[in-house]
Amino acid sequence: MAYNPRAARYLCFSEAARAFADHSDSPRAFLERCLDQIASLEPKVRAFAYLDIAGARASADRASERWQNSRSLSAVDGMPVAIKDCFDVKGMPTEANSALFKGNIAATDAAHVDALRRGGAIILGKTTTTELTMALPAPTWNPWDLRRTPGGSSSGSAAAVAAKMLPVATGSQVRGSVIRPASICGVIGMKPTFGSLNRYGGIDPSPSLNHLGLLGGTLSDVWTVAHQIATVVGGDPGYPIFAGGPQLPPERRPLRLARQYTCGWPRTDDLSKAMFEKFVHELSSQGVEVLEPQSDPALSEYEDATTRTPEFFFDLMTWELRWPMRVWYEERPQAMSENVRAYVAKAEEMSVADYRRALDRREALRRQHRALAGKADAFITLGHIGPGQMGQPSVGTPWYNDASSAIGAPTINLPLLAVEDVPLGVQLMGFEGRDEELAAMARWFMRMFAEPA
Amino acid sequence: MAYNPRAARYLCFSEAARAFADHSDSPRAFLERCLDQIASLEPKVRAFAYLDIAGARASADRASERWQNSRSLSAVDGMPVAIKDCFDVKGMPTEANSALFKGNIAATDAAHVDALRRGGAIILGKTTTTELTMALPAPTWNPWDLRRTPGGSSSGSAAAVAAKMLPVATGSQVRGSVIRPASICGVIGMKPTFGSLNRYGGIDPSPSLNHLGLLGGTLSDVWTVAHQIATVVGGDPGYPIFAGGPQLPPERRPLRLARQYTCGWPRTDDLSKAMFEKFVHELSSQGVEVLEPQSDPALSEYEDATTRTPEFFFDLMTWELRWPMRVWYEERPQAMSENVRAYVAKAEEMSVADYRRALDRREALRRQHRALAGKADAFITLGHIGPGQMGQPSVGTPWYNDASSAIGAPTINLPLLAVEDVPLGVQLMGFEGRDEELAAMARWFMRMFAEPA
Repeated sequence: MAYNPRAARYLCFSEAARAFADHSDSPRAFLERCLDQIASLEPKVRAFAYLDIAGARASADRASERWQNSRSLSAVDGMPVAIKDCFDVKGMPTEANSALFKGNIAATDAAHVDALRRGGAIILGKTTTTELTMALPAPTWNPWDLRRTPGGSSSGSAAAVAAKMLPVATGSQVRGSVIRPASICGVIGMKPTFGSLNRYGGIDPSPSLNHLGLLGGTLSDVWTVAHQIATVVGGDPGYPIFAGGPQLPPERRPLRLARQYTCGWPRTDDLSKAMFEKFVHELSSQGVEVLEPQSDPALSEYEDATTRTPEFFFDLMTWELRWPMRVWYEERPQAMSENVRAYVAKAEEMSVADYRRALDRREALRRQHRALAGKADAFITLGHIGPGQMGQPSVGTPWYNDASSAIGAPTINLPLLAVEDVPLGVQLMGFEGRDEELAAMARWFMRMFAEPA
Repeated sequence: MAYNPRAARYLCFSEAARAFADHSDSPRAFLERCLDQIASLEPKVRAFAYLDIAGARASADRASERWQNSRSLSAVDGMPVAIKDCFDVKGMPTEANSALFKGNIAATDAAHVDALRRGGAIILGKTTTTELTMALPAPTWNPWDLRRTPGGSSSGSAAAVAAKMLPVATGSQVRGSVIRPASICGVIGMKPTFGSLNRYGGIDPSPSLNHLGLLGGTLSDVWTVAHQIATVVGGDPGYPIFAGGPQLPPERRPLRLARQYTCGWPRTDDLSKAMFEKFVHELSSQGVEVLEPQSDPALSEYEDATTRTPEFFFDLMTWELRWPMRVWYEERPQAMSENVRAYVAKAEEMSVADYRRALDRREALRRQHRALAGKADAFITLGHIGPGQMGQPSVGTPWYNDASSAIGAPTINLPLLAVEDVPLGVQLMGFEGRDEELAAMARWFMRMFAEPA
């Protein structure tokens, strides 16, 4: 079926929860609908690395009973969720698609899993990822076109949501691993402000870059899950916790958006470029001012800096992989792909001074970005250089995502465009700590451009 | 034997290494001298939670062979070190004096252990600590007076160095766990700039506060170990790595020091106060200007802020313990002391807003401290409110340590005073990232006040 952003409809838990409240639906019935979808599509999509159907049913029954007795634990009580397979879920394997971690059963829950479980969410299983979240692709296909990649590294999470197997799945992003698969699979992807959601518990290869993120069918479900995590386990220690109320904030029309090109635009195919230009035009006709970088010296300097982000991004990633990657490398080099071994080799060539220089460049970019707060409400660009490629070897490129990942500002992928009958997302990036404001704008976008015309 | 800072002499590895180079001594012989000391004092001091004597001898033989062939791996090749028992050493238990972790054998080395091992250091064992590094005391006694506490939480590391069992042992500090036992045991304690030495691998209850630190008999050995860790595994991801050359920098006389009182002074006994006053007087007579807080409005405001540090410090610690502590609490409450259970209960009462407020207050204190960089070369105060108390139930108080821990500035304990015939340290705190400058001043202090008169 050809993808159409105004026609695509995903699972919405918050809508179902209203029916749980009046007893016309139940978490168990909701789960069974998810399981039916999994039974029919999972053999082709392969979004899951691990499934615990019996455990999920037992949890759903307990949630159903709570809703029946009007004693639901939280807004996520009874929500089936899946966890990216780099995070720990007690009793399930954490393998991150790596031979290094084959059969590695987690003894405890990752922080965010603990938060979801305490709220009554149903931990249905683990979603596939790329090797160690960075190398060999997941064995997963794009539900909108089974010949194409779902993107990565949160491959299974994006695919499961797009296939309506689940309302929300968790992901993580170092370079583009939440926004990119969300863009390619046509779902909501939210990477909150760096550090604002606790990502502890699992395999975390680039700790100063890695964000816990969420992929979901609707903004409201993604928001609810983020709020649950924030209130129960907070953010990464030392960082201000994801702020905002329990409900998705009311929509807000942006007054002024700054358009970004980054390294992505020159690599974007013509059709995708044309679709984005058309979208920018529609925005203008809705009364939103879209600033081009050359309209302002500060914007233009910032734009220029974003195109040079990969110069230091790779150094940050590589140094942070150095330990423990080389310990693993020495123990079992055959359990790593060529690609991972290349990272280890590159890391060995780096010095303390190289890393310090990369940190300084990142800090300079962050300062430039912060200084633009008065100029625009948010930055807008594509989520990826085009639709998901045919075949699995590519999980997509990071060119549109490096800047927001390095800056750590909140970023949302909005499934607003279709190219070649498959999805292409629009990436909206805000300012550090202002996640609520960004979500309010995202809501306006979804109503204007993703509701039936 | 009564403690006298000018007479106390500890093991110095860098001195021995010069003799390894000309083959008049060897790592194996050095280790045997350590083992003799351990055999005679460990039954009374009880500094070790675990010892691997056979493994240490085998490592020492390999190091001896390398030195014999002039192929030593690094400046720490053949150095016997012990690791605080909250960090992982492959194949040894990591128990952190907690029933929760009884028999918990580490599968890999903590980052800093990996760095030391790669440099040829001999990992002799694990040193005792307080329960989870924060509650019930270690079963360890002060080598300078076996009726007294060695302080905590790096209790065994300080005691082992003071007992001349080892030249250096590792420690960690959230509130005062490096500086305090160093002060009480009369050894060098170095807490570098927050994040500048990689502390990954082990039990880390307060991640935005915890520092990897070092306890040693000499500044040069401590410096060498820090340099080895920094160059091999760096700092905590995202933080500038400990900077400085491979050698302890040349001494530097401070021109101007700012005296700090903090919450410690009102709680300090009269004898200790008198010793510190005398010391300040000696400093002045050496031409060092010692500024009182009231001599300058900015210093005075900062002093006032430091006295209010405990108001938010406890909130930071508590929130960061909330997860995973409550997971452990729910599984095995009987495996936690009353004290730890009280932390869990307190954490449950905290909100996201409480934590954010505490972070803001810490940031404000850091800004105040940074702004004083032009006023003084360093801050000086006592390392603890007095000598180690009689009996174990107290491992000391954090009142002199909260400020430097919250600020994250580099801090060194210098064993310069004796009170009641046991040690009392002087705490020297510098400015973020300027560890080398602080060490240069510390070296001047040691020559002036700790060498035989």
